Amino acid sequence: MSKQKTAIAPTRAENYSEWYQGVLKAADLAEHSPVRGCMIIKPWGYGIWENIQKILDGMIKDTGHQNAYFPLFIPLSFLEKEAQHIEGFAKECAIVTHHRLEKNKEGKLIPAGELEEPLIVRPTSEMIIGHAFAKWVESYRDLPLLINQWANVVRWEMRTRMFLRTTEFLWQEGHTVHATREEAEVEAKKMLDVYVDFCHRYLALPVISGEKTPSERFPGAVDTYTIEAMTQDRKALQAGTSHFLGQNFSKSCGIEFQTVDGSKEYGWTTSWGVTTRLIGGLIMAHSDDDGLVLPPRIAPTHLIIIPIIHDESNRSKILDYCENLSRSVKHHRCGNEPIKVFIDKRDLRGGEKSWGWIKKGAPLRLEVGLREIEEGKLSLFRRDKPHKERISLSAKELEEKIVSILDEMQSDLLKKATRFREEHTKKIDKLSDFHEFFSAKGDEIHGGFALCHWNGDPAIEAKVKEEHGVTIRCIPRGVPSEEGRCLFTGEKSPRRVIFAKAY
Amino acid sequence: MSKQKTAIAPTRAENYSEWYQGVLKAADLAEHSPVRGCMIIKPWGYGIWENIQKILDGMIKDTGHQNAYFPLFIPLSFLEKEAQHIEGFAKECAIVTHHRLEKNKEGKLIPAGELEEPLIVRPTSEMIIGHAFAKWVESYRDLPLLINQWANVVRWEMRTRMFLRTTEFLWQEGHTVHATREEAEVEAKKMLDVYVDFCHRYLALPVISGEKTPSERFPGAVDTYTIEAMTQDRKALQAGTSHFLGQNFSKSCGIEFQTVDGSKEYGWTTSWGVTTRLIGGLIMAHSDDDGLVLPPRIAPTHLIIIPIIHDESNRSKILDYCENLSRSVKHHRCGNEPIKVFIDKRDLRGGEKSWGWIKKGAPLRLEVGLREIEEGKLSLFRRDKPHKERISLSAKELEEKIVSILDEMQSDLLKKATRFREEHTKKIDKLSDFHEFFSAKGDEIHGGFALCHWNGDPAIEAKVKEEHGVTIRCIPRGVPSEEGRCLFTGEKSPRRVIFAKAY
Repeated sequence: MSKQKTAIAPTRAENYSEWYQGVLKAADLAEHSPVRGCMIIKPWGYGIWENIQKILDGMIKDTGHQNAYFPLFIPLSFLEKEAQHIEGFAKECAIVTHHRLEKNKEGKLIPAGELEEPLIVRPTSEMIIGHAFAKWVESYRDLPLLINQWANVVRWEMRTRMFLRTTEFLWQEGHTVHATREEAEVEAKKMLDVYVDFCHRYLALPVISGEKTPSERFPGAVDTYTIEAMTQDRKALQAGTSHFLGQNFSKSCGIEFQTVDGSKEYGWTTSWGVTTRLIGGLIMAHSDDDGLVLPPRIAPTHLIIIPIIHDESNRSKILDYCENLSRSVKHHRCGNEPIKVFIDKRDLRGGEKSWGWIKKGAPLRLEVGLREIEEGKLSLFRRDKPHKERISLSAKELEEKIVSILDEMQSDLLKKATRFREEHTKKIDKLSDFHEFFSAKGDEIHGGFALCHWNGDPAIEAKVKEEHGVTIRCIPRGVPSEEGRCLFTGEKSPRRVIFAKAY
Repeated sequence: MSKQKTAIAPTRAENYSEWYQGVLKAADLAEHSPVRGCMIIKPWGYGIWENIQKILDGMIKDTGHQNAYFPLFIPLSFLEKEAQHIEGFAKECAIVTHHRLEKNKEGKLIPAGELEEPLIVRPTSEMIIGHAFAKWVESYRDLPLLINQWANVVRWEMRTRMFLRTTEFLWQEGHTVHATREEAEVEAKKMLDVYVDFCHRYLALPVISGEKTPSERFPGAVDTYTIEAMTQDRKALQAGTSHFLGQNFSKSCGIEFQTVDGSKEYGWTTSWGVTTRLIGGLIMAHSDDDGLVLPPRIAPTHLIIIPIIHDESNRSKILDYCENLSRSVKHHRCGNEPIKVFIDKRDLRGGEKSWGWIKKGAPLRLEVGLREIEEGKLSLFRRDKPHKERISLSAKELEEKIVSILDEMQSDLLKKATRFREEHTKKIDKLSDFHEFFSAKGDEIHGGFALCHWNGDPAIEAKVKEEHGVTIRCIPRGVPSEEGRCLFTGEKSPRRVIFAKAY
């Protein structure tokens, strides 16, 4: 059997990791920069991020939060105030030590103006925001304090991969203070639910939500909640986290408030964030061997119209027709946003244009030539269907049906990703099955999410990680508790947790 | 005569600089952070920035530009490639030299993992974006390349003042490449016009646009264009700049393209930006001795409804009425945005609430008590009118008139600021008048924009700066050329330029 030609080589099955890089390049989403581990997000990739920002920002505001902006730099002494926190971030801090360049005797520019105290480029902002909150919060009347920030952060990671783990990345970080433990716990879970809802409805990402084990918690957190997506190589991708911080950061930052009865108490805080990593998750969940596949609700452009002009004398007739089509659909909506249309008038062959947009993952393509206009039959192509499969419709039908076609594509992608995850999620109750599940046969894609009983012992967790490269991704929420025996020790276990290889 | 009590003390006339700080604090826009020269932008201030971003981003996209994102860090060797550029920024660079923290023998955390090459936190991104553009541009078909970035930048300034000059600030920076000198020159001027239009229509800031003199150019630019606003202490505030960079940066970054006839040529580039400084300009143009005054089209909230509840038994009736009012106006628009309403239900006295919103500059306030509901006569207050001056109207009239009231306020603010600028702009043709114009009588606010003839000599410009603290703000555009004699040397001069003290 001859091999089908694909736009991306190698394919997912051949080499998943190179396929991922190939999709990024073919879709022109991002590229490496000359700065170690930092990427350049190109317009098509940044367009996705702008949509993520816009939609999620609305959801964050709808739940009562306000945006603000805090400094990029954090004095070293601030980070040190919370012992676990600094412990967790010390190894990956970009440090500003000087504030001027000066020529030395050889005429070479060198750092000068050494700072009295080094400044850390924020890896996260709990300590600098906490310092401000300590001044903003005086009484229970000031609570809850619900703040969000859109910002860039820097973590000096040793191994980087575009969108998934970069030295600098973009994110939002929510930081809140509450009068009671219960309220802060509710907030941390509520924002996790906002992330779940956003991933399902807009990214078509069927994430699983749950609680992290103590060894996987955010440095300084009491509880860390997570959403985990499954990639097409059946690994877990942590796609967002929400932390209940107890009074740990309040105590180290001095966030105290006067209670209703006049006593002083430390506030209960949370923090939560999602990053440009979501774009990596999006690519890994939906894309195929011909490139990116974008869920319509997050796509920078929904419909690409490709004019097919064989004879120059028809140019203006065909272009006018395309403009009319564009106008007819633009006042309809995909999700909350107006449908965006691009008429690709570039001086390239039609096939070249079509393949360009297939690789970029544009949800719908329409080819419009003289024949289509005269016959009144247009050919519409859905990116998630085989490339030759066309929807034949009139201009009027396009206008009437485009919203439902986009909605159907959106829900089909979610269904497909959900089915994929379900197919590769297994309850495992025998150690040999566990070994089998996570063992590669050559380079073949294998494994998935293993639902197993575990005795709660971090030592066992560490051993499994050591031996199999497999970690506990989360203790899933919303799953009925089920008595069982720890897969590794035979001890009693109250419920299953999810084991998987992870990005 | 007894002094009128004002919400901000000192007043503008008493101490302009302290008044400015007072407005920032009273309106809760921003505060100092523990990091030298960096501010915290609080929700009300950040809400203004979000509106600036949203509107200006639309205008930048409408003129054909796309957003992208480039790294925060620039390798030192990149900055050095353009001699004038590095010369201009060397004294104000935050420099990352290490990527890890380690404990020394005393257990103190110190910077470790020294970088082979120091990284500069971007003060502007010409060199890092230019490096990418050199790869993106191959042929004339790739041009024009029209890119914009929203980002934070850092310039280690010695004297800082919130919003006007901070170590870290937020901005957008446009970067474009063109095939011809003419096209790049047109672009630089076009984007300046976008800024002028934005400032006039949304910020109600009547800026003057023009060209900078060589000594005031951006480091590495061929021409720098500027927009200059007048503050209420009659100084000039540079509110945005646009640069025609010639082939200087193309040559240092290697941005070459194949022309139509197959030869190689360096691209012609531009860059242009506005920053969070615009918020400083906004405050200094419109605010008064009772606090901030916000032009409606940029205000985070347009209408504040204050329920006046004297008797708890009426609470739900009054609140329901307020909700209905809110619903009735929310589907109308102020500029391009839906009207935003806030019902202030806080447990505070009505007067306290009203004064809070006066200080924050909310455009409209409505006080709603039982009497107003029963009489069907509401009292609406415009922030730019005397505080006791009410517009008396019914609920129906409010719905019908709110758009025109907001529009009128918007245009009144622009008119008022324009009148102020015109009153304090003088043609000066005698050196003694120039001295007089820029000489303080005690602490009194004085001076303004002086339109004077100048011979074009940078030495004269430097001398005037030295002697009077006055600089040439710009060679204004759109002003008829007028032959005359240089005020300082008597030499011939083809047109007047604007001299002023500046922020």
